[in-house]
Amino acid sequence: MIQGFDDVIAKVKSCGIKKIAVAAAQDSAVLEAVREAKAQGIADAVLVGDEAKIREIAAGIDMDLAGYRIIDEPDMVQAALKAVKLAHDGEVDMYMKGLVDTKNFLKSVLDKEVGLRTGGPLSHVAVFEVPGIDRLLFLTDVAFMTYPTLEDKVNIIRNTVPVCNACGIENPKVAPLAAVEVVNPKMEATVEAAELTKMCEEGQITGCIVDGPLSLDLAIDPEAAKHKGATDRKIQGDADILLFPDIHAGNLVYKCLVHTVPGIKNGCILTGTKVPVILTSRSDTFETKVNSIALAAVVAEELSKEV
Amino acid sequence: MIQGFDDVIAKVKSCGIKKIAVAAAQDSAVLEAVREAKAQGIADAVLVGDEAKIREIAAGIDMDLAGYRIIDEPDMVQAALKAVKLAHDGEVDMYMKGLVDTKNFLKSVLDKEVGLRTGGPLSHVAVFEVPGIDRLLFLTDVAFMTYPTLEDKVNIIRNTVPVCNACGIENPKVAPLAAVEVVNPKMEATVEAAELTKMCEEGQITGCIVDGPLSLDLAIDPEAAKHKGATDRKIQGDADILLFPDIHAGNLVYKCLVHTVPGIKNGCILTGTKVPVILTSRSDTFETKVNSIALAAVVAEELSKEV
Repeated sequence: MIQGFDDVIAKVKSCGIKKIAVAAAQDSAVLEAVREAKAQGIADAVLVGDEAKIREIAAGIDMDLAGYRIIDEPDMVQAALKAVKLAHDGEVDMYMKGLVDTKNFLKSVLDKEVGLRTGGPLSHVAVFEVPGIDRLLFLTDVAFMTYPTLEDKVNIIRNTVPVCNACGIENPKVAPLAAVEVVNPKMEATVEAAELTKMCEEGQITGCIVDGPLSLDLAIDPEAAKHKGATDRKIQGDADILLFPDIHAGNLVYKCLVHTVPGIKNGCILTGTKVPVILTSRSDTFETKVNSIALAAVVAEELSKEV
Repeated sequence: MIQGFDDVIAKVKSCGIKKIAVAAAQDSAVLEAVREAKAQGIADAVLVGDEAKIREIAAGIDMDLAGYRIIDEPDMVQAALKAVKLAHDGEVDMYMKGLVDTKNFLKSVLDKEVGLRTGGPLSHVAVFEVPGIDRLLFLTDVAFMTYPTLEDKVNIIRNTVPVCNACGIENPKVAPLAAVEVVNPKMEATVEAAELTKMCEEGQITGCIVDGPLSLDLAIDPEAAKHKGATDRKIQGDADILLFPDIHAGNLVYKCLVHTVPGIKNGCILTGTKVPVILTSRSDTFETKVNSIALAAVVAEELSKEV
C-alpha cells in the first residue's frame, strides 16, 4: 500500500531503474535532482545540452559525470527537440525540463514529429503526501489547464487515473470539487460535477468512481463527512483525485498546502503524454524535484505495461 | 499586536463586555458557545426563541440561565425579526444565528425595517490564525458572495478593512489572488486584480494597500517572495486580506486550511452590516464559534467608534 513518497520510491526500485532525457541540462538545480535520483536508484539520465556548461556546473556542485550519457547541443530549442526524440523513440522513459524556457519545452512535447502527443490534451497532476492523511492525494489541474470545459475534465480524469494506478490505487475515487456539495444551477462547476458523476455511472468514464459536486471537507476528511451525515455518498472523505473547477481554485489550494502544512511532501508531472513529463518550477524544493522524478518513474512503468 | 485569537479575546475584554442577540436560541451548540463567551467575559446574550425549548436544552447541557434575558417567541422567523430588531435599535452589539435556517436568518438581516443594511452588499470574512504565520489572515469571500464583480470586490474590501482595523491592523495589505502573479488578459481574475490595485493607487479604495494579482505564495510566504525576487511588489509575503476570485477558490482554500493544518484556529463573521453578524455553520467547532463571537465583539467596538 502506497501511503507516501517513500513508498513510491520503494516501488520504483522494485521496477528496475528508469531513464530520463533532460532538455538543456545546464541547470544546477536540475543536475542536483538528477544526481540524487541516480544515487537513490530511482532513475538514470541522458543529459542533452551545452556540454561545456554542463561540465562546468557539475564541477561546481562536485557532481561526478562518469556514467551519464551527454549529448552536446548548445542551442536550447534544439536540445529540447533532441531530448524529447529520445523519449519519443523509446530510448528513455521520461522527459524533463532543464534550462530551456517553459514555452519551448512545451513546444517540444507537442512537436508533431518527435514529440509525445497521444491525441488528447495534456494535464498536470500534483501528488501530495499530507501528514494525517493515510493516502496520496492527486490534485488536478493546478498549473496547466486554465479553464477546463466538461470535455477537458473528462480528459483530465483519463490522464490522472493511470497516475493513481501507478501508485497502487486500482479504482481511484474522483471528487469534482466546488464550494458546495449540492448542484446549484447558478454554479457551473456543480452542474459539470454532476454531469461527470453521471458519465461515470453510465460507463463513459471508466477505471474510477466519480462523485461530485463535493466540498473539500467531504472529499478529504472522513470525520467531516460523518458529521455532515454524508452516508449516501460514494466518497466520504476518501477521495484520491481532487478535480478543481479552474486553475485559480487549484493553484491556490496547491500553494496553500505547500506553504502552510508542516511536513507536507509533493511531486508533479505532466500527463496525457506518451511518457511522463517532468516540469518542475524554480520555486520547487530539491525534495519536490526528486519526488517528481520518482513519480514519473512509477508512471513510466505503468504506461509501459499498458502498451 | 494581535497575532491570534487569544489577543482578540484579550482586546474584547479591555473594551468592555458586548451583547449578542441570538435568533431562535433553542440550539445546544449555539447555547454552549454563548455560555463560553459569557464565561470568558467576551459577550453577554439575549436569547430570543422558544423559551420552553431553550430551558429544556439548557438543562440538558447543565447551563445556568440566570443572568440571561430571554424573549419568548416560538416562531423562528418571528424570533429572528425580534432578535435583529434589538441589534437594529442599538440594544445589542451583535446578531447571531440560532436554529433558524440560513435563508430566513439572512432575510431578517436584510429586512428593510428592522434589519441591518447599510446600503452596500454583505460579505463574509474568515479570519485565520495559522501556525507559523505571525499575524491573522482575513480570507474573503469564502462562503457568501459567489462570483463577485469588480464592483463587488471593491465592496468586499471596504467591508473587510474595518475588521482588520478592529484587530489592530491600521492599513491592511490586500492581495487579490489568482493562479499567477502577472496580468493575463485571458484570466479575468488577474485583470480585475490589476484594476483594484490601480483604484487603490488612485484613491478610489482607501484605508488599505492593494497589490494584485498575486499567487498565494507571494501573498503569505516572505521566503517564497524573496526566492521569486518579488522585491518591487508592495506585498512580499505579508498580505493581511486574501481576496479570492470566486467562492470556489475561496471555499476550497478555507476548507484546506481547516482540514489539513494542525493547530489552526479561525472565526467568521458577515460584514457590510450595521453590526457584525455571526453565522456559524453546524460543521464549525465549538472553538470556532467562540472565536467568531470574539471577532464580532472587537468589530462591534470598532464600528461603534466609527459612528
